[in-house]
Amino acid sequence: MNAYCAAVDWGTTSFRLWLLDETGRILAERRSGEGMVSAGPDGFAAILEAHLTAVGADANLPVIACGMVGARQGWVEAPYVDTPATTASIAASACRVPGLDRPVHILPGVAQRTAGQPDVMRGEETQILGLPDRAGGRDDPDLVCLPGTHSKWVALENGRISGFATFITGDLFAALAKHTILRHSVADPAAPFDRQSFAEGFRAGLDNPAEATSQMFAIRAGGLLDAARGGDGGSRLSGLVLGLEFAGGRSRFGATPTLTLVASGHLLDIYSAACELAGIEAVAADADAAVRRGLFAAAREILA
Amino acid sequence: MNAYCAAVDWGTTSFRLWLLDETGRILAERRSGEGMVSAGPDGFAAILEAHLTAVGADANLPVIACGMVGARQGWVEAPYVDTPATTASIAASACRVPGLDRPVHILPGVAQRTAGQPDVMRGEETQILGLPDRAGGRDDPDLVCLPGTHSKWVALENGRISGFATFITGDLFAALAKHTILRHSVADPAAPFDRQSFAEGFRAGLDNPAEATSQMFAIRAGGLLDAARGGDGGSRLSGLVLGLEFAGGRSRFGATPTLTLVASGHLLDIYSAACELAGIEAVAADADAAVRRGLFAAAREILA
Repeated sequence: MNAYCAAVDWGTTSFRLWLLDETGRILAERRSGEGMVSAGPDGFAAILEAHLTAVGADANLPVIACGMVGARQGWVEAPYVDTPATTASIAASACRVPGLDRPVHILPGVAQRTAGQPDVMRGEETQILGLPDRAGGRDDPDLVCLPGTHSKWVALENGRISGFATFITGDLFAALAKHTILRHSVADPAAPFDRQSFAEGFRAGLDNPAEATSQMFAIRAGGLLDAARGGDGGSRLSGLVLGLEFAGGRSRFGATPTLTLVASGHLLDIYSAACELAGIEAVAADADAAVRRGLFAAAREILA
Repeated sequence: MNAYCAAVDWGTTSFRLWLLDETGRILAERRSGEGMVSAGPDGFAAILEAHLTAVGADANLPVIACGMVGARQGWVEAPYVDTPATTASIAASACRVPGLDRPVHILPGVAQRTAGQPDVMRGEETQILGLPDRAGGRDDPDLVCLPGTHSKWVALENGRISGFATFITGDLFAALAKHTILRHSVADPAAPFDRQSFAEGFRAGLDNPAEATSQMFAIRAGGLLDAARGGDGGSRLSGLVLGLEFAGGRSRFGATPTLTLVASGHLLDIYSAACELAGIEAVAADADAAVRRGLFAAAREILA
């Protein structure tokens, strides 16, 4: 086995490690739930070494890590680099963990300090920089969406992260569904997905975001006035908050013909449905492959 | 004592009773926390009679009540009347509680069945119809805002409730502040009100509602990037959700030069501040006086 580095995606609640050769090919792989919150300040080194031992890594094999492991409350803080950000600017600001024989480099997140649009990401920048090159010679900016609790839309210009916006979509949906009067309308998590209610909610959010907070109440009122609506509240609310997100994406980055979705499973399904309703071509990308390629690209810069 | 009727505002968590003479003057008054949720299906009559006995009401004195007491989960359901609604249409649909010697009339709420804008109110319609006549001969529609957990904007045309919109503002603020990542930014309920942050949040919500859900995340990101911001997250979020509400009010009812605010205390303060930022003249109205006058006006119709 001719390992070049270990690439680690270390998030709030998850740990993933790939042992890579010098071409980026996977030699071994580990996954666990030992994220930042379960590691604690002293546990990071022990968790990492246990996984490296399990894949037979040498004691001096370099490690490149990204994600919440580099947050203030993580292992070692890797302060944000500013937009515009590139693989080179991110690699140049990596922090080496002090006091270890093994070289462990933690990549920084990216900060946007534009007035009125402060924003941060940590981990997503590595996925973005590891996406397959889709430019094909065009010099149009590309737009990438990473759905999740805090969904991120990222604009790429010539391979640089030029700007981004984070939408609180998933977090907002859960808070509305569980902790407001809408809990009566989104009570049944097993209610089937209702495509028409999703579409109506989406169009309301996209076409008239000004009335979003009255449309939220209308989900409750509509259920009271029309018992036939039954259990469609969750689908309608899901469409509404996604419509708001797409309205925000359009407001911030302009109309886009295509959107790369770094997602899988249910999130990929509903964001693909949203793209179709908005007249946008969706291009799916695999998040695991993207972060692995982004870590490998950073490793090539750091270890050169 | 020459009592004409007892007027009762019976909400989810509160009970208020006024003994009125035939000119609407207050002879006696009672307040308690015995709302719908604490009354239970059998307790309504007992609670009401205890308060009537305490003010020395005759056994046959009529009672006019409004609020959640008339909801499906209340005492006797008084089904909604549709918009446009008037004192006459509301009084005509009052439900007399069966099985009692005393005449007890419960006023219905109002439903809006417009496609795409389903909405309901119960209790607010009585406040609205009891507002002092402000028309002064103008035939412009008046616009009234009743701030609260579910804030209502109500359009009046020639004394009729012609349309309304409910914004989930207060409920949304509490859910965001307690149950999303913004809890880290709105942690301190004792943080002083920051007028500038409120104004910035308000303008972001009013001028660019499409980006509302990214502006929500920006409250967290701004705090991470600029420690000097300190505890202004609550003021900024409060401004943002209020800005969204005012954007919705403008979208639904058009620009308005004046807005009647049926509110007091902190809610009156922040809605007045919002009006000033939006260039709207705020006119305060007392909610207690309004509901009492609305109940009395309905009593005159029902008991005539």
